[in-house]
Amino acid sequence: MSSRLVPVEAHLGEVLAAMRPLEPVRAGLEAAEGCALAEDVTAACPLPSFDNSAMDGYAVHASDVAGASEGSPVTLPVMDEVPAGDTRTLTVAPGTAVRIMTGALMPAGADAVVPVEWTDGGRDSVRISQPATSGNAIRRRGDDVTEGEVLLKTGTRLGPAQIALLAAGGHGSALVRPRPRVSVIATGSELTEPGSPLAPGRIWDSNSYMLAAAVRQAGGEAVRRWVTDDPAEVLAAIEEESGAADLLITSGGVSMGGEHDVVKAALAGNAPAGNAAAPAREATPGREATPGREAGVAQVTFRKVAMQPGMPQGFGVVGANRTPIFTLPGNPVSAFVSFHLFVRPAMDVLQGQAPGRLPTARAALAGPVRSPAGKRSFLRGVLDSGTVTPLTGQGSHQLGALARANALIIVPDQVTSMKEGEVADVMSLL
Amino acid sequence: MSSRLVPVEAHLGEVLAAMRPLEPVRAGLEAAEGCALAEDVTAACPLPSFDNSAMDGYAVHASDVAGASEGSPVTLPVMDEVPAGDTRTLTVAPGTAVRIMTGALMPAGADAVVPVEWTDGGRDSVRISQPATSGNAIRRRGDDVTEGEVLLKTGTRLGPAQIALLAAGGHGSALVRPRPRVSVIATGSELTEPGSPLAPGRIWDSNSYMLAAAVRQAGGEAVRRWVTDDPAEVLAAIEEESGAADLLITSGGVSMGGEHDVVKAALAGNAPAGNAAAPAREATPGREATPGREAGVAQVTFRKVAMQPGMPQGFGVVGANRTPIFTLPGNPVSAFVSFHLFVRPAMDVLQGQAPGRLPTARAALAGPVRSPAGKRSFLRGVLDSGTVTPLTGQGSHQLGALARANALIIVPDQVTSMKEGEVADVMSLL
Repeated sequence: MSSRLVPVEAHLGEVLAAMRPLEPVRAGLEAAEGCALAEDVTAACPLPSFDNSAMDGYAVHASDVAGASEGSPVTLPVMDEVPAGDTRTLTVAPGTAVRIMTGALMPAGADAVVPVEWTDGGRDSVRISQPATSGNAIRRRGDDVTEGEVLLKTGTRLGPAQIALLAAGGHGSALVRPRPRVSVIATGSELTEPGSPLAPGRIWDSNSYMLAAAVRQAGGEAVRRWVTDDPAEVLAAIEEESGAADLLITSGGVSMGGEHDVVKAALAGNAPAGNAAAPAREATPGREATPGREAGVAQVTFRKVAMQPGMPQGFGVVGANRTPIFTLPGNPVSAFVSFHLFVRPAMDVLQGQAPGRLPTARAALAGPVRSPAGKRSFLRGVLDSGTVTPLTGQGSHQLGALARANALIIVPDQVTSMKEGEVADVMSLL
Repeated sequence: MSSRLVPVEAHLGEVLAAMRPLEPVRAGLEAAEGCALAEDVTAACPLPSFDNSAMDGYAVHASDVAGASEGSPVTLPVMDEVPAGDTRTLTVAPGTAVRIMTGALMPAGADAVVPVEWTDGGRDSVRISQPATSGNAIRRRGDDVTEGEVLLKTGTRLGPAQIALLAAGGHGSALVRPRPRVSVIATGSELTEPGSPLAPGRIWDSNSYMLAAAVRQAGGEAVRRWVTDDPAEVLAAIEEESGAADLLITSGGVSMGGEHDVVKAALAGNAPAGNAAAPAREATPGREATPGREAGVAQVTFRKVAMQPGMPQGFGVVGANRTPIFTLPGNPVSAFVSFHLFVRPAMDVLQGQAPGRLPTARAALAGPVRSPAGKRSFLRGVLDSGTVTPLTGQGSHQLGALARANALIIVPDQVTSMKEGEVADVMSLL
């Protein structure tokens, strides 16, 4: 019961060591939005792929307009007109002009575009009152991207600009790490669906909604379910979900106390018929991480992590696919903090990214805070202009303060109190 | 052709003055994720809604265990057991104990919970070796949220923590501003679908993909289409999309030069049969913003905004619903910058939020930059640790640099050059 606490970094390190990027999939550009590339993408052709006009105007030989001025304009016959998208190959003979639109293919012969603003805009002939030097208003083939150049590197997240570059380069799809499919299983016979009437002693389920929202915010797809405190039901749900999910998250049933710790009981004691492998065991000092089912059905380590909230944690793999599973504590604030410290970085790795953290800053405390010795506290606060105000209601069941917070105040493991005005590390929640 | 340039703030101000939050909808909690509340939500009951145990242990009368110690433990008979979710109303008589689990309803009579760690964990009787004071390990009804308290205020964005609080309070749905439905219409006969072969003079469409991705990043839903440079086709697409969309975005066809400015032509000259209202007109100095169709078919103002890229802009309303429309320039970098400066803040207002901006910072230039007089430049750069490096390839058609950039360097309207080492304002793109 009193096993040594595991430091936050040690638990995270073990989690991350077990995570592998998901197998890449080829996705259309819209499906690929927000995903990370799983390969370098090179340019199959230069961009632009042809010399084209940067402006609406007239394609000319620059030498023909070298002497043009307001007082002494040059007039040229307009032989044709090229809109953008016109696929004809025109030629501009010396002493003539071709009307040309922005983006249109430069005709052969011409080496400059005279912007329409420097002319009378004529259609049959054009009066040009300003000289254009060779190359004026021409976008050269390859001046954006050269053929064979790496457009985007492996691991690049595809935001709007990156999607645009892929599209401009003719790529209708991309090889990306898919969005992780995450099953969230809330446990507890006390849980009731929000919107339904509540019996005394029951509570509305918030964890499955919260964790599913957090999964989506972290780039995943989420399914939610909840089960009662029946180990067989919990185990059946975990096994069922492990088939299709890339990651499982349970909440509740992992505290250190009683036989009602249903997630522990499910993953430790209720082997399916015919599976006689050893059950998962609780970590003990100096000999933790005893794996469970050797057949791969469940290898989950339960431990106490040196943090508050969120001390009871479990992590391992379940099912034939060895699907990673996080067994988070059931108090909603504990589950929230645990998600951000452990699950979210793990989801980054699944998505082919370096494990991220919430952005951190330093801020002066607007009031004192307390923290248990030997545990790192993550207290709810409001960060504003370099000052962070600890909120009232720091219990691990108190969602009111969490919903008002925009930051977590970090009190180091060995620090038990900090005074008003002291500078603390904070993690931004927005 | 040479109308005075409109400052960025003036254009944005007119855009925002025309925007109204979308009509609220009642949405299930999962659909409401990321949306803003359209009403204050109050607590219909206190949270917790009943006194419950904060730990696994034993519910007792504190006075019975006041003298307990390691050397002189108190032994009490265990009369019953209350797991979480048990709806029975138990009573603890003086001199007895009830085994209780975390979250379970406190039995009547008991005023303290002795954590299991302070006991021998007995089932029929329990030996208690540490005293618990009155109130120990009890979460009181209402200690998180009191009945009638405002849980969340109008305008609050519903992230995971806010969704959790709604769920914990029994709300299965929320009244929110819906995600704006945005139709993106790219114009240009030169456009070809990415993934298809390219004819000479044609380009792959990137704007519709880029803008749709940006819309989704800004909280909207996007549909994409593209049309050729035929004003009738453009007008038909705009009118069709205006029926279902909350916002329209076109790209291309708004430059200042030629008759190939198809979006202008569509919104100005091609009134449907029977509609004889005045066409939209280009802004002229001192007398801009002449509205078009009085019947509400199209009232769009085209103007030059004092910025680079992105000078040619149009904004107005179209269709019977007076759907807001942005006519963005067709160069992809121009469209991207325009989206972030004008469309994204407008989408915030549709979603019941204060108009946001990209986060700004100050950074030292790692190299010199140039900018035309009288225009604010937004140059692509890489921001790292307080230094911003301008990228090569600042043309408004050059997506390569945009896709590598993580920031836009802002050069003020009247500044034409900045030296290496000067400190500039930058907008972060990540």
